[in-house]
Amino acid sequence: MKREYFQDHLPDKKCFGCGTENAEGLQIKSYWEGDEAVCFWTPKPHHHGWTNILNGGILGTIIDCHCMGTAMAGAYRAEGRSLDSDPKYRYATGTMTVKYLKPTSNLDPVELRATIREIKGKKTVMECRAYSNGVQTALAEVIAIRVVNTNESSHGNPFQQGQANS
Amino acid sequence: MKREYFQDHLPDKKCFGCGTENAEGLQIKSYWEGDEAVCFWTPKPHHHGWTNILNGGILGTIIDCHCMGTAMAGAYRAEGRSLDSDPKYRYATGTMTVKYLKPTSNLDPVELRATIREIKGKKTVMECRAYSNGVQTALAEVIAIRVVNTNESSHGNPFQQGQANS
Repeated sequence: MKREYFQDHLPDKKCFGCGTENAEGLQIKSYWEGDEAVCFWTPKPHHHGWTNILNGGILGTIIDCHCMGTAMAGAYRAEGRSLDSDPKYRYATGTMTVKYLKPTSNLDPVELRATIREIKGKKTVMECRAYSNGVQTALAEVIAIRVVNTNESSHGNPFQQGQANS
Repeated sequence: MKREYFQDHLPDKKCFGCGTENAEGLQIKSYWEGDEAVCFWTPKPHHHGWTNILNGGILGTIIDCHCMGTAMAGAYRAEGRSLDSDPKYRYATGTMTVKYLKPTSNLDPVELRATIREIKGKKTVMECRAYSNGVQTALAEVIAIRVVNTNESSHGNPFQQGQANS
């Protein structure tokens, strides 16, 4: 069975972290593995913070985008519908907390594993763990807010109430 | 008087967020304005999340690096010494929480203002606010940990105990 990536179903594909059409972006890809949303992503040399260590902000960026995709996919799943169905949902970050436990290698793929703790209306609470060479290096809590329902044809600013961003 | 930027005194200048020698990085510049550490930074077009809105991870990245610079400069200030004095201090992020209040424009400069709440040994706790066109768009709490003292000549991995990263 072909693996289905959340980001192929985003209503807007420009995002620095996860937009499949942002040539200068990180272009992460996330998918389900049971109840875990998984992402493997390989840094480029200039993403380092210090020699051979991934910049913490870039790690936060992939965690953030992975979780926004997970919130979207989790909402569709909770509604019993496929990623290509309508209406399209967009999520934006409400609050993100990242606890950096150990350095993350900039030379090797980073592995992210997110689980949904709670979906309550437009709010989704997730936990995301980052691993480098099989060792956990960060733990994050991410709260996503569904900001607007949109169709594929709409590429405007989804912040009609201006709550948050991703 | 010439403005003195914290990042010109980093012991390693490669960092994606704040390294003055990382041509593909964000190259933020931070300086004191009284007790506030200030940074103005202008996004590039590919840093958007959605159309005209800054990616939340990139906002987190500049907040993170701005605060690591602030922790370093704040420690030197607390010790009554200049930014070019020895020993050189390096800080890494322990925990960062970003609350996204409103969208941040990707078309205009972002303004960051950080204050130090507490310095306790190797730990510095900061608050950082982000503004877009004069409106506050994010509030962050950042905990920095001093990971090692180093000299200008040392560019190796500072994680001798592997606590955290930035």
